[in-house]
Amino acid sequence: MTDRDASAEPDRSATDGASAIELARRCDNSGRWGADDQRGTLNHITPDVVVAAAGLVRLGVTVSLAKPVATRPGPTNPRPAWHVMHLETERPYATADSIHLQIHGLANTHLDALGHMFLDGVGYNGRRAADVVDMAGLRALDVAALRAGIVTRGVLLDVAAATGRPWLEPTAPVTQADLEAAEDLAGTRVRAGDAVFVHVGLEARERVQGDEDPSVRAGLTLDAVAWLHARSVAVYSGDCIEQFPDSPGAVPMPLHQLGIARMGLVLLDCPSMTELVATCHRLQRWEFLLTVAPLVIEGGTGSPVNPLAVF
Amino acid sequence: MTDRDASAEPDRSATDGASAIELARRCDNSGRWGADDQRGTLNHITPDVVVAAAGLVRLGVTVSLAKPVATRPGPTNPRPAWHVMHLETERPYATADSIHLQIHGLANTHLDALGHMFLDGVGYNGRRAADVVDMAGLRALDVAALRAGIVTRGVLLDVAAATGRPWLEPTAPVTQADLEAAEDLAGTRVRAGDAVFVHVGLEARERVQGDEDPSVRAGLTLDAVAWLHARSVAVYSGDCIEQFPDSPGAVPMPLHQLGIARMGLVLLDCPSMTELVATCHRLQRWEFLLTVAPLVIEGGTGSPVNPLAVF
Amino acid sequence: MTDRDASAEPDRSATDGASAIELARRCDNSGRWGADDQRGTLNHITPDVVVAAAGLVRLGVTVSLAKPVATRPGPTNPRPAWHVMHLETERPYATADSIHLQIHGLANTHLDALGHMFLDGVGYNGRRAADVVDMAGLRALDVAALRAGIVTRGVLLDVAAATGRPWLEPTAPVTQADLEAAEDLAGTRVRAGDAVFVHVGLEARERVQGDEDPSVRAGLTLDAVAWLHARSVAVYSGDCIEQFPDSPGAVPMPLHQLGIARMGLVLLDCPSMTELVATCHRLQRWEFLLTVAPLVIEGGTGSPVNPLAVF
Amino acid sequence: MTDRDASAEPDRSATDGASAIELARRCDNSGRWGADDQRGTLNHITPDVVVAAAGLVRLGVTVSLAKPVATRPGPTNPRPAWHVMHLETERPYATADSIHLQIHGLANTHLDALGHMFLDGVGYNGRRAADVVDMAGLRALDVAALRAGIVTRGVLLDVAAATGRPWLEPTAPVTQADLEAAEDLAGTRVRAGDAVFVHVGLEARERVQGDEDPSVRAGLTLDAVAWLHARSVAVYSGDCIEQFPDSPGAVPMPLHQLGIARMGLVLLDCPSMTELVATCHRLQRWEFLLTVAPLVIEGGTGSPVNPLAVF
Repeated sequence: MTDRDASAEPDRSATDGASAIELARRCDNSGRWGADDQRGTLNHITPDVVVAAAGLVRLGVTVSLAKPVATRPGPTNPRPAWHVMHLETERPYATADSIHLQIHGLANTHLDALGHMFLDGVGYNGRRAADVVDMAGLRALDVAALRAGIVTRGVLLDVAAATGRPWLEPTAPVTQADLEAAEDLAGTRVRAGDAVFVHVGLEARERVQGDEDPSVRAGLTLDAVAWLHARSVAVYSGDCIEQFPDSPGAVPMPLHQLGIARMGLVLLDCPSMTELVATCHRLQRWEFLLTVAPLVIEGGTGSPVNPLAVF
Repeated sequence: MTDRDASAEPDRSATDGASAIELARRCDNSGRWGADDQRGTLNHITPDVVVAAAGLVRLGVTVSLAKPVATRPGPTNPRPAWHVMHLETERPYATADSIHLQIHGLANTHLDALGHMFLDGVGYNGRRAADVVDMAGLRALDVAALRAGIVTRGVLLDVAAATGRPWLEPTAPVTQADLEAAEDLAGTRVRAGDAVFVHVGLEARERVQGDEDPSVRAGLTLDAVAWLHARSVAVYSGDCIEQFPDSPGAVPMPLHQLGIARMGLVLLDCPSMTELVATCHRLQRWEFLLTVAPLVIEGGTGSPVNPLAVF
Repeated sequence: MTDRDASAEPDRSATDGASAIELARRCDNSGRWGADDQRGTLNHITPDVVVAAAGLVRLGVTVSLAKPVATRPGPTNPRPAWHVMHLETERPYATADSIHLQIHGLANTHLDALGHMFLDGVGYNGRRAADVVDMAGLRALDVAALRAGIVTRGVLLDVAAATGRPWLEPTAPVTQADLEAAEDLAGTRVRAGDAVFVHVGLEARERVQGDEDPSVRAGLTLDAVAWLHARSVAVYSGDCIEQFPDSPGAVPMPLHQLGIARMGLVLLDCPSMTELVATCHRLQRWEFLLTVAPLVIEGGTGSPVNPLAVF
Repeated sequence: MTDRDASAEPDRSATDGASAIELARRCDNSGRWGADDQRGTLNHITPDVVVAAAGLVRLGVTVSLAKPVATRPGPTNPRPAWHVMHLETERPYATADSIHLQIHGLANTHLDALGHMFLDGVGYNGRRAADVVDMAGLRALDVAALRAGIVTRGVLLDVAAATGRPWLEPTAPVTQADLEAAEDLAGTRVRAGDAVFVHVGLEARERVQGDEDPSVRAGLTLDAVAWLHARSVAVYSGDCIEQFPDSPGAVPMPLHQLGIARMGLVLLDCPSMTELVATCHRLQRWEFLLTVAPLVIEGGTGSPVNPLAVF
């Protein structure tokens, strides 16, 4: 581990409840990329990072990381999306349809805009909710600010595999140490501009054990979020977010509150991980070209997406 | 032009109305990639094509080809999309929203599924509309069959620039000769697996002349569609489709009827071209890595998308 | 039964499958109220009928016959309605929301337009589906043609109570004889312009036995539908429709096919009956003023409604 | 005017801005019908009022007061409703569709729930917005609390006709004196439980002068709202609401803020008045049976309706 830049490591003691505020201050990227910046950690994806990521495409194999748009109700989907086939009476004969879906929740794969979350009334880059949130849509930090999409290196951090188990329990914390163990397994170091995909085995567990109570979930601890900051991660994704139920304390949802609202960290929620994990293990490759392209919803707080991993 | 494979050229005389049926027969890819194939011309995108396309990324510059989701009414948008900001009363403070949009039409950038169009009751790969089209969604040829997305070389064919004008008139045909002139301008040859983007200057014309009657539009002729087949194009896109109003004859909508329903050609409708064209001219590069990732709408006839061009 | 007009009685033998076509011919109200009529059996509600119905209001007691808009999924509600609270940021402080629902199905109380059903391609008053059904909505026989609503006498026909049971079994037929037994119980005769509400105890049965398979349902037989015609009923409603699964034969759905498509009978689907039945039994009154007011959806095939019974 | 109960008259001097707060206190119906009441002024509609209203039905003539569901964009309809015809592939052949609409605004005829408006954070019957307003819907004062609907006397107050003009100007105030002049024209006195329909000629003016700026509108003054309270009106409706733009002062929207949030006054917004006014003038009758039946949207802030006037 000599190649680690020690100065980049967060102080683990800082993750005590009492010092969450201090941590928030330390992770705050406000002003880092200019007073008007709305792209947050995507700024870590420099042109060099993009070019290097494209260089990872050696086999021409593509894997979709999207779940199907969730039109059926279930424990994680109380308000199913509508997909309606339209009557078409004009000729020549075409088919047409429409969709109605909510952006967030636990059912659809989606990208969070930076204006999705605020902490103490303030979001990324010092934007106040009172100034930004409007009934017509976000006046800033909307998903349209991310319209150029994400093209970067993706790295699978298979935390479950690193522990030797198919999945973590629903109550498990995911710590900085877990992430680093998964890094060792992957044989690569997470670096500036990366999109990390953390795997705790949720889909595998649900396949075996059935649908679970979505209010109890494994997830990242404060120190793990600080580690994402220290490593200059551009995008966080995976089959876990924060621990549910929320931790007590000043920052109950560290990934959303420290991540989105202070770091300007872009979250890719609810990816489908199964095929990605199988492909990585099969190819014994843990890095790939990732592309994510949100719909350009002006004022939108996020977008459904179909992220692609290309090997 | 000695590097052209003459055998790949369509017989231009075949484009007379009388021989449209013969042309449809000749362009038919039914069975070409197996009786169960649902991906049509995306099969032209072999792993080698993907790897080569990734090699085009040299600058790390990304351009979005998506129009904003069209929530405002207009001549091309009689049924505007809804974007609704949701009331959120739980803490910590998050914002959330939903969208409701129709897939097709002239307002939103979208990818057509192969089951979007049928000719004489039969679609790509011999699938009958009566077997495939269901009130719950397409039973086959749906957009979910394209879930692995598109990663390939994109080529800008700037037909307007090749004629020396900023735009073509609304009544202009776009012929094989026009496409080849644009090829010459680009200094590259369209080849198997490419995604072509034809530019006739619609956006520029509308910026200057105001909104136009969307029922009169420049577009591809039958012979141009046959040329796409001859060149084994994987994806057609651009600021024109067929000529509107429909041509008389057996195949009034050649791109949809020959293209989708016989070739299994994947259409990327209504891209935003302005920034792409400007970037190509600025960089004097007409090829790029293209990624398109449709939402996984099971049974869906298409999907809104944000295509990315990476240079 | 001496006050019955024998000539108004249907020939029960006519209800054999073989004579369903003849029955359809006999029940056909095409042309009865003019070639352009779009209101069907609502024409039975003459001004005198309206005035007499208003005279039934003696207690000033109103009962709603609407189920709540069904936003939760269930066996009869595979595509739940959306009710979304909107973010409001303007002052003064108001709340606002939107609804998205499908008109038909088994979950929401709704009125069928006469263009909701066709038999052999022809609907009420000789209208051909090919002429009337358009992707933009019904060109005729739409629910907007019923915009003046329904104000008439409602009569509860408590078929379950007439048999001495709290409910009929899911497989039970409801015949002309059942309707007449319920008439005897009610002490009134169904007459021209009435809205009948047939009660077989579905809600009571489901409260006790839980949600049922909605594909097996008690319902009216052909002869019962012919009786509605003979009595010049204006509106059919109740907790049963036809028998499900469909009967074999030429007219598997007699209430929809003979009723809507030939008689021009207006159906009020999925009313909430429990409070109405309890009120009728408590007051020992089986008739009341009924008002039903569909939303004016131009081109619409029906409308959600909240029918009111006033005693 | 000797039959007027002088004690019921509001003190006109109280309508000065300075005394709006005092007026709000005086009009406050909190506790009047019990601490749990959610029906507000509908409590004025006693059984006797219902029976008397039914007695107004003498001709059997019904007039709809609903505008068509507004699916086309326009100055008062920036987010048009969707009406979508569904593809139906099952047999026998039926048509089906869905609607998606927002409850409030200036385009669709709708009934306001009492939880639609709050003043200084407090709504009708002392309910605090913080307790009542939830992302899942109103926890109290929702439109489902009005599910039994409205059956009462309607009275047309033709303010325009009383001034001898076809319409008032967009900037006109509508005062207590205007309402009383319209009463004189109608030859009846507004009394407890009535639904009043104020007519200032908006539709006639727009037919002649074209669509208007909806931000400038004639409307009721504070003293007119106090008069509604003094007369124990149950429902306010008409082609004007408050004056737009909002008046300066503590109560800029008197009908919403005093009316809904203090009196618990039920507002029926955006009725179609033209046919009603023509019918009243033709019959020389200004009173009628009114029925309004909101959809039972649990948690809903209002409902689209089709109010019926029966003469």
